[in-house]
Amino acid sequence: MEKLPGEVGRIEVEAAGGGYPVVVGYGLLDALPRVLASVAQGRRVAVVSDSHVDPLHAARVRECLEESGIDAYGLTFPAGEASKTRKTWSILTDRLLEAGLGRDSCVVAVGGGVTTDLAGFVAATYLRGVPVVQCPTSYLAMIDASVGGKTGVDVRAGKNLVGAFHPPLAVVADVDVLTTLPIPERAQGLVEAVKHGAILDEDHFERIGRDVAALLEASPEDAASLVLESVRIKADVVSRDEFEGGYRQVLNFGHTVGHAIEAAADFALGHGSAVALGMLAEAELGERMGVTVPGTRERLAGVLERLLTDLALPDTDAPAFDFLAADKKSREGHVRYVLLERIGRCAAGDGWTYEAPEALVAEVLSSLHAA
Amino acid sequence: MEKLPGEVGRIEVEAAGGGYPVVVGYGLLDALPRVLASVAQGRRVAVVSDSHVDPLHAARVRECLEESGIDAYGLTFPAGEASKTRKTWSILTDRLLEAGLGRDSCVVAVGGGVTTDLAGFVAATYLRGVPVVQCPTSYLAMIDASVGGKTGVDVRAGKNLVGAFHPPLAVVADVDVLTTLPIPERAQGLVEAVKHGAILDEDHFERIGRDVAALLEASPEDAASLVLESVRIKADVVSRDEFEGGYRQVLNFGHTVGHAIEAAADFALGHGSAVALGMLAEAELGERMGVTVPGTRERLAGVLERLLTDLALPDTDAPAFDFLAADKKSREGHVRYVLLERIGRCAAGDGWTYEAPEALVAEVLSSLHAA
Repeated sequence: MEKLPGEVGRIEVEAAGGGYPVVVGYGLLDALPRVLASVAQGRRVAVVSDSHVDPLHAARVRECLEESGIDAYGLTFPAGEASKTRKTWSILTDRLLEAGLGRDSCVVAVGGGVTTDLAGFVAATYLRGVPVVQCPTSYLAMIDASVGGKTGVDVRAGKNLVGAFHPPLAVVADVDVLTTLPIPERAQGLVEAVKHGAILDEDHFERIGRDVAALLEASPEDAASLVLESVRIKADVVSRDEFEGGYRQVLNFGHTVGHAIEAAADFALGHGSAVALGMLAEAELGERMGVTVPGTRERLAGVLERLLTDLALPDTDAPAFDFLAADKKSREGHVRYVLLERIGRCAAGDGWTYEAPEALVAEVLSSLHAA
Repeated sequence: MEKLPGEVGRIEVEAAGGGYPVVVGYGLLDALPRVLASVAQGRRVAVVSDSHVDPLHAARVRECLEESGIDAYGLTFPAGEASKTRKTWSILTDRLLEAGLGRDSCVVAVGGGVTTDLAGFVAATYLRGVPVVQCPTSYLAMIDASVGGKTGVDVRAGKNLVGAFHPPLAVVADVDVLTTLPIPERAQGLVEAVKHGAILDEDHFERIGRDVAALLEASPEDAASLVLESVRIKADVVSRDEFEGGYRQVLNFGHTVGHAIEAAADFALGHGSAVALGMLAEAELGERMGVTVPGTRERLAGVLERLLTDLALPDTDAPAFDFLAADKKSREGHVRYVLLERIGRCAAGDGWTYEAPEALVAEVLSSLHAA
């Protein structure tokens, strides 16, 4: 694909069925007709977005596609994680069928992580798979959800338990749209960037600490360079281990405990806040197990507390500990944790994960309350 | 995988994520612990079958696995195409989650095409994909459904419109179980073998005509050699074009019209009968368009009418013609047909398919009533 107007940079992600570019820049949503002409050869397009993003960005995308002679069909669902279900997936699928979209059509997802995951899963299973172009509109979706080909929905038993690997044709990250994102959501998304730095790149970690204010403001230059750098880190991991056979586990740092905290709080807590607490807990766990350099938790807290000023474990009826065993990353019933060696480097462990004594985990979790 | 006791032969199918063997032989269901030890390394196993096949074969499979120290969890759903829905898929998925099966588990599908398609789709989407071993128990599933990685469910708008490509770890075709299949269902399945001969192998086609009686009887030697030969033909096609980009289209001979006939008859007609009528119609179409050698339809009818003695187009309220445009193989709204050059060879066309004048299609379809 030729260089797009407004493009700041791009990262190529390797995938089994052929790699794909993640293009980062300014005003890129207006360049979508060019992207589609290049990767999808004038297919009919279904633009999927939620009720919040549709008027903000997706309507413009459809207009822009139609003006270029591409037949763009709009599909909208109610905004929110509560929509990320098999039911919404069924409804969207049936609407595509009613619209008569064939195997030569293409899904364009415009939105945050819920939209990219849900629309990606629709594309993965529609007529046994049609291509998808991901246009993430949140920090979280730009640096995490839309890179790596994971798609899926939540079920009662947990988040993302049903889904498929379905790499996109391309990811188009237009950082200009970040200004329409509420500031607390920007902070939630940036937690994943902190994670990227914590597991693999100390400079990236330090830089986020330094630029917190500009990043929360979503100043375009700062946002573009941050997104590019986080995508570079994530792309490097998923290119080495597309199907999470081993190394890709490192991206789950903070997530084993984070998911349990989310579930215990019945998702009243943001994903970023839960992962932030999860990273603190797993850093503490690593330090107590002698795997992680002392002081790591404190360095993490230094950045995370600037990002999330109200970071605290919510009081819940069920302790997070009870939700740990249900994690889908458990192997034969044993819960496993990604631990840091230090900021910028994961500990190798057994396939990049560790078991931990249950009593110690319980102690670390209760210490979060005091934090 | 080492040679199994009772194995007659095997075909290797190529697939993007690594190929897989289709093993054909006698009493192979008893060798499943060996297969699983070889391809799935002692995973926890979910044995999926329908209410009809469960007591006949799946219960024995579970017992056999448990005796070999493999933890086998049984999942059964009501027999019949009516179960091949997103709802059953959801129920089976939720039961796997309740049973706590993790990403290191493996689905074993024991049954006909409904089971292999449905269980395959459960495996394709469970925790973003766990492996599946397919144990087809019908002719149709052995020679067609379980080879090529297609999985999926039916929706109101049509059959197999939601699904995924999810190649199995292995396919184990135990021809001994065919004797438990009602004879009319054996005939339905053999229609796909006739198709394999018609599109790619005149000898195979002639051989089915010669051996109809023994094949309907499911004499083990005849059944094994037929299944092996049909799998060889299908495997050759799907190895060349796994994702149906072009060449794999040839397997749809008889299916464009066949699916429309099925839909018009509201699925009161067997899939094999519908495809048989579809092949006759598409042979007639090809002859009238000057693409297919004259007399081809007659040769097809000679074999198909011995297989299906009651072959006739059912009288329906809605003509099959009305259902043609809904076919998912349509490209930008144009219905396309696979046409033979002669028995044993497809006509190249444009990507192995042809458009046909609507008036001619309507005429050919109405001529089926008179046949």
